[in-house]
This record gives sequence, structure tokens and C-alpha cells, in this order.
Amino acid sequence: MFYTIDILGTIAFAISGVLVAINKKMDVFGILIIAFVTAVGGGTLRDLMIGDTPVSWMKDITYTYVILASAVFAIIFRSKINYLRTSLFLFDTIGIGLYTLVGIERGIQAELHPIICIALGTITASFGGVIRDVLCNEIPVIFRKEIYATACILGGITYFLLSEIPIQDNIVFIIAGIVVIVTRLLAVKFKIALPLIYKT
Amino acid sequence: MFYTIDILGTIAFAISGVLVAINKKMDVFGILIIAFVTAVGGGTLRDLMIGDTPVSWMKDITYTYVILASAVFAIIFRSKINYLRTSLFLFDTIGIGLYTLVGIERGIQAELHPIICIALGTITASFGGVIRDVLCNEIPVIFRKEIYATACILGGITYFLLSEIPIQDNIVFIIAGIVVIVTRLLAVKFKIALPLIYKT
Amino acid sequence: MFYTIDILGTIAFAISGVLVAINKKMDVFGILIIAFVTAVGGGTLRDLMIGDTPVSWMKDITYTYVILASAVFAIIFRSKINYLRTSLFLFDTIGIGLYTLVGIERGIQAELHPIICIALGTITASFGGVIRDVLCNEIPVIFRKEIYATACILGGITYFLLSEIPIQDNIVFIIAGIVVIVTRLLAVKFKIALPLIYKT
Repeated sequence: MFYTIDILGTIAFAISGVLVAINKKMDVFGILIIAFVTAVGGGTLRDLMIGDTPVSWMKDITYTYVILASAVFAIIFRSKINYLRTSLFLFDTIGIGLYTLVGIERGIQAELHPIICIALGTITASFGGVIRDVLCNEIPVIFRKEIYATACILGGITYFLLSEIPIQDNIVFIIAGIVVIVTRLLAVKFKIALPLIYKT
Repeated sequence: MFYTIDILGTIAFAISGVLVAINKKMDVFGILIIAFVTAVGGGTLRDLMIGDTPVSWMKDITYTYVILASAVFAIIFRSKINYLRTSLFLFDTIGIGLYTLVGIERGIQAELHPIICIALGTITASFGGVIRDVLCNEIPVIFRKEIYATACILGGITYFLLSEIPIQDNIVFIIAGIVVIVTRLLAVKFKIALPLIYKT
Repeated sequence: MFYTIDILGTIAFAISGVLVAINKKMDVFGILIIAFVTAVGGGTLRDLMIGDTPVSWMKDITYTYVILASAVFAIIFRSKINYLRTSLFLFDTIGIGLYTLVGIERGIQAELHPIICIALGTITASFGGVIRDVLCNEIPVIFRKEIYATACILGGITYFLLSEIPIQDNIVFIIAGIVVIVTRLLAVKFKIALPLIYKT
């Protein structure tokens, strides 16, 4: 089941990359690269920083096929993709929930401090989008106006708090994932954003 | 011979970095860094992702000398460099042909899937320019208007198709390199570019 | 003592990140990330390139606490931080002196060529700021107008020249650090900058 969610998240991330790249008037190759980077960038950075190489997407060709297929689909149906907006948003949100937890698990395996594990989870879930925005010459959107990383961090904290209690690992995993997902859904629904800090 | 071509490619990449950096009104240090990054950025990213560290340019000081010398030369003769434009373009094109194949070979050594090897070759040949453009605050030029990565990918496909046939490794290598070079030369000569994807 | 200087440098780098991020109208999360990246980005890049993973800040939680505390402090007192400008500049300058030497030592341990070690020291001291500027969608300031990397390079050269003479390692370390610091202080005081290279 995790694998299925992972693939759904990859699809959503790849498509979000395509839409941003089209807005930037890139050619087909540029669009494919941005789709790729958005989908695997966070996990690649995580793997590099903990020294787990070759990085994940290089060891499992499935990701490459899924990303290419999603990108081609999104390019062809770009004018219709609005109809899928809600589904994509859901995939994306479920994807970041899972990516956060995958990053945390990798941190635990590498015997890192819980706070570092949460950072690793947040990097896994959000830095694909950061690299996408940098390559598109924009200030990363998650630094400006979305409760995105915050959802990852709350999920990560939940994970470690629940780990103290004697309940099954699976249940901890699922609850923490739900915290990420619900936080983001509520934030978007009620237009909650982190405060901007103005010069005084 | 490969080493000679590698050095010629390094020279061409370093000089292209200098020219872009001067346009951005950088100081001498900035220009040197951009020359460096353009020349070794793609190979560095490749080495990091497959876990081959310290990265290549750190293990062979020759690259550093060649890049510094090329950059100083390009700074001094910047007003005359137009006369060298054709030579530089040839060096650059031969360089990407070779860099692509070096990346593919490294991927094969790391026992990666052929498609991943081709991606690795393309990254080796083209991401130096991507990092250069990001540091210069531009959307990477290869995402917008050049048959550059496409040439790398076609060369990579040729390489793996020919590997199925019982011919010598050297010949496979040379033919695949020629495919990269000829694709790019033809694309530039006949002004062929990948289609842009417009919003509909 | 080195550890204390390291922490002071981390504080100065984190606060400089906060100030840049506030100017870019980022939200709280974005500001924290920029503080983090400015403080640990150079060391992370160094660790990745020599293959020393998990990267340093992941193995010592102190850095995370120091950066978070510095960032919160800087956000709260952002209107008063001008009074600290001189102290911060001193911390920052001492920090780059130390970071340069830490990078060089790591290079020596990895048995790299002296020139590569100096490059590694310079990357450690200056690429946190480069990544900060890239994420803030600016051309990195050290490529344009500050004697910053140049100070690192001069300190590195001093280090290797003195290593040839039979004096204590500690003294070599201290003199080289002082060269970095004094070079930068003099450059700022007398408004010395590297020449810009104009098109001719």
C-alpha cells in the first residue's frame, strides 16, 4: 500500500512540475526535467545527505516510467487538467504525508536525532518543489505562503510523540501521516498561512 | 585521446562560463567560480548521485589548472573571443559528446538500468550549464531553446542499441559520440528546436 | 575554543540569513530555512563532495538548536538588530576564518591536493551565502562585490606556506585564520573590491 501511495504522490508531483514549467514557456525537454526534479528532488537531497547512494530513483526504474508517463499525460491534456485539480491536490497532499514519513524512517535507520529525522522528512516532502522553483527562477513558494512544511513538521512531531507510547508501529505511521494530510487540508480550506515577518 | 577531448571540452565549458558571467557584471572571483561550475558541475552532480566521492575534479588537479588558465585567457581576450566562436562551439559540442559517454560508462559500472545511465550521461553533459544559469539568476537555457540534452539522449540510445550487436566497444563508443555531435551540429545549422508547449 | 568560534560563526550566519529572508517577505518557515541554509550550506556541500555523510549538522544537534535560537532572536529583535551590526560583522568574519580552516583540514584528511583543500575551505566559508542568495532569487553577492572568498583563499595559501616551515600546527592555524580575518576587515574598512570585468 505504501508503494501505491508513493506512486500516487510521484504522479501528483510530476504533474505539478509540468504545470509550472509550461507557465515558464519551457520546451518539452525542460518540462520533463522539471517534472522529474519536482518528483524526485526531495528524496535525492535526502539520500545525498545521509550518504545512501546511488540515490533511490536510480535504483528503481519504476519512478522514471511513472514520471515520464505523467508528464506526457499532463502535456497532452494541459487544457483539461483543471478538472483534475481536486484529485491532484489530494494525491499531492497524501504524497507529502508519505514522503515525510519515509524521510523520518530513513533518518531513524541512520540513527539520527529525532529533530534531524523530522528535518529529513520535511526535506523529502518539500525540497522537490524548492528545486523546481529555483530552476524556474522563482523564490520557492513554500517559503512564502503555504502551510506545507509546517504540516510535515507537525506530522513528524506526532510520530515521535506516539513512538513513546506502547502502540504498534503501523498505527503510529498512519496517525502521523493523517496529521500531515489533515493539517494541510484544513490550512488550505480555511486559508491559514504562516505569518509574514515585516521589517519594522 | 579521450583525455585530450575531455580537456578540450573543459576549456570550452570554462570559457562559456566566463562569457555568461561577464554579461552579469560579476567580479573576477565570481567569473572564476562560474567558469569552474560550468566545467565541473555536471560531473560533480553525477559523482554525488552515484556516490563516487571525493568527486572527480578533486582527485585530478589538472582540471583546476585547465579551468583557471582558460578563464584567465577568456577574461584577457574577451573582446577578441568572437573570432574563436566556431572553435569554441566545436570544442563544446565534442565535449558534450564525450561527457555524455563518460556519464553512461559510470552508470554501467554502478550497474544501473540503461535508461538511468542515459539520464546520468545527460546530467554529466548538461547540468554544468544548468548550475551556471541558476547562479546567474536565469532560467537554464537548455530548458528553453536548445537541442542539447536531446543530442545527449539520442547518443545514449544509440550506445545501448549498438551494445546489443557484436561489435567492438570502442566502435560503439565512437559512433554514439558522433551521433551526439552530429545531432547538435545539424540542429544548430538548421535552427531546429524542440517545440515549446503553450497553454491552451 | 574552536568549538566556541564555530558556534559564534553559526550565529552570525543564521542571523544574516534571517535579515535577507525578511527583505524578501518570506513567512516564518521560509526565514528559518534560509537561516539554516546560510549557516550549514557551505559545510554540507563540503561534506557531500568529499563523501563524509551523514553531513556534519545531522550528527551534532547543537547546530540546529543554535540556529533556531538565533533565528527566533533575530526575528523578534529585527528592528533593533542594527545596534548589533558591528558585533555580527565581527562574528561573521571570525566565522569565515574558522570555516575556511575547517574545510582545509577536512581536505587534508581526505588527502587532496593543497589547491583543492583551499577550494574546499573557500566553499565551506562562502557557499552557505551562495545558496541563501540563490534561494532568494538573487545573483550571489560574493560573486559581485565583496572581498570574501578572496580572504579565504589568501588564508588558505598562508596555511600551506607556513606548513612548510617547522612551526607548531596550532600557530599555523591561528596565523592563517588571522590572515582571513584581517584581509576582510581591511577590505571592508578601505572599501577594496575585486575589479569588475566589463565587456570591451
